[in-house]
Amino acid sequence: MATERAKRPEDFARSRPNVSDVPTVDAHCPFCPGHEEMTPDAILSIPHGHGKGGWDVRVVPNKFPALVPNVDAQCIACSTRVGPYLRRDGVGEHEVVIETQAHNLDLPLLPTEHMVHVMEAYRMRYLALQQLPSTELVVIFRNHGVKAGTSLLHPHSQIVASSVVPFPVRNKLYEGQRYFDMYGRCVYCDIIAYEQKERTRVIMENEHFLAITPYASSAPYEITLLPKHHRASFGRIAQDELHDLAYELQNLLARLWRLLDDPDYNYVIDTAPEHMAHVPFYHWHLGIYPRLTTPAGFEIGSGIPINIALPEQAAAELRDTSGARLTMTEAIGKGG
Amino acid sequence: MATERAKRPEDFARSRPNVSDVPTVDAHCPFCPGHEEMTPDAILSIPHGHGKGGWDVRVVPNKFPALVPNVDAQCIACSTRVGPYLRRDGVGEHEVVIETQAHNLDLPLLPTEHMVHVMEAYRMRYLALQQLPSTELVVIFRNHGVKAGTSLLHPHSQIVASSVVPFPVRNKLYEGQRYFDMYGRCVYCDIIAYEQKERTRVIMENEHFLAITPYASSAPYEITLLPKHHRASFGRIAQDELHDLAYELQNLLARLWRLLDDPDYNYVIDTAPEHMAHVPFYHWHLGIYPRLTTPAGFEIGSGIPINIALPEQAAAELRDTSGARLTMTEAIGKGG
Repeated sequence: MATERAKRPEDFARSRPNVSDVPTVDAHCPFCPGHEEMTPDAILSIPHGHGKGGWDVRVVPNKFPALVPNVDAQCIACSTRVGPYLRRDGVGEHEVVIETQAHNLDLPLLPTEHMVHVMEAYRMRYLALQQLPSTELVVIFRNHGVKAGTSLLHPHSQIVASSVVPFPVRNKLYEGQRYFDMYGRCVYCDIIAYEQKERTRVIMENEHFLAITPYASSAPYEITLLPKHHRASFGRIAQDELHDLAYELQNLLARLWRLLDDPDYNYVIDTAPEHMAHVPFYHWHLGIYPRLTTPAGFEIGSGIPINIALPEQAAAELRDTSGARLTMTEAIGKGG
Repeated sequence: MATERAKRPEDFARSRPNVSDVPTVDAHCPFCPGHEEMTPDAILSIPHGHGKGGWDVRVVPNKFPALVPNVDAQCIACSTRVGPYLRRDGVGEHEVVIETQAHNLDLPLLPTEHMVHVMEAYRMRYLALQQLPSTELVVIFRNHGVKAGTSLLHPHSQIVASSVVPFPVRNKLYEGQRYFDMYGRCVYCDIIAYEQKERTRVIMENEHFLAITPYASSAPYEITLLPKHHRASFGRIAQDELHDLAYELQNLLARLWRLLDDPDYNYVIDTAPEHMAHVPFYHWHLGIYPRLTTPAGFEIGSGIPINIALPEQAAAELRDTSGARLTMTEAIGKGG
């Protein structure tokens, strides 16, 4: 934590996306309704809840995938030696969750039952992808805004099924196991109990979820959304939890939108691999990472994140901000 | 490596700093000559080589430090328990290396002997800082451009002395030791020998240094500059190596400038902690990380970097680009 650094002089202005400049349908957008032939065939399509026809949520393969399906049935993801290095193919699946037909909407503007459909798409694709023999880990994430790495404006999330459990994930599992070995408890369950008692970092709470700004957060206004029921894997989430997740996630995104004027952010579902779905030492959760500052040379060289905003202050501000569903009038009035 | 992703459609335009719009002296810049009273007193000042008076390089404490000196002599960097968490003060030093008096110059434009002065400032401050009882690791880095986290335009680097060896650094040391335990050799020495033979990833080479695009680079046009002589610690660099480092680093930055039109980048000196200065399993080096793409949700969630440009192709392009010192005419003509 280095709050003094928030006072640094800035030679550079910031760009900000202008919500009111976005059309309802974009002629060139592959995710807009009527352009379904611009994407590969849908893997999943969740229809409107009100019998109007058409879809609420549509999942398609990513046309520009980071990982591609395996072509060698003998060896799902073998490594070969190249001098002192190891080489392996980027085996896996990469899907896009088109969250709404409307090019200009965004998650905080959707009806809550529509938001539940987005969460249902996550769960359905998670359960399908984790059954593939090539899947070791399913990563569900959303990039919002240029600084968060978005290349297309149309509201969408992404799902990657990876054929490896990458080192940083394996390390978190290992540290969770180490805590369990020392204290006999899940570290996340302990964090939930402590934060519920302590309150200073709690943003909101409902029956099934607790939202906090994590202790010694790595970035300003970072949020962790924790399910109160201990489950290592997101895939095992229950239906009533899914509703609470949709409601609380939308509520948090509405707070961020109002408090920070539609900031760029990523969110990621952090889950144990499926083969560890029943371990007592890991606990799935969702992390929201606003992209307000830029990691620089020190962070690259040391791996130590510098955070210029105290999480306790961020939690207080987020608590004091309305989490009501965003209206289009509000979005157009304040955007830009 | 996912080169297909380079073909993704982009809804967003890119900003680029305009070199020709920068004045020689900026009235509000704390690093410009005549404004020395705007910074704390200089820790080090390297005078002009030609007896003209004034300074070439000036090192000052960072006015907005990420870490601050220890105030408790009994406990340099103790942790205290806060519920399930550990808390410790951010103990250390944070210095700024002002690389030139000229607000509008940049490293590829400096006379090579001036560039040697910058490297000498790095070494002198490294050696001084590593002697402090609170220092566990010295990180020397440079942020160039908004996307690399710069807040001020005036050419400068930074040095942080940290009171911890952070986990990602400790992990690299551990992996180096593991390789040494298995093969009896330094992994970096093996990489140098292999790349010198293989050539496809070599950009340039002089007596003391080899510059490559690392195998399976994490980002487009990433460069590693390796000293051929095995040393774990940057602090032990010899004088003739320092000259070659200055020359080769400047040459690489000129190539990047010409090939990619002055891209934003970070560079970082990666070194073993001083108490491991003589280990056979680590090998200091300098990494240059152009900030051409934005890590997004997948990278945050998995820790797997996605690179859309093959390092072999990047090396070929950098080899074919002139590394001659940049002229002001060239900089003004092409900038913006």
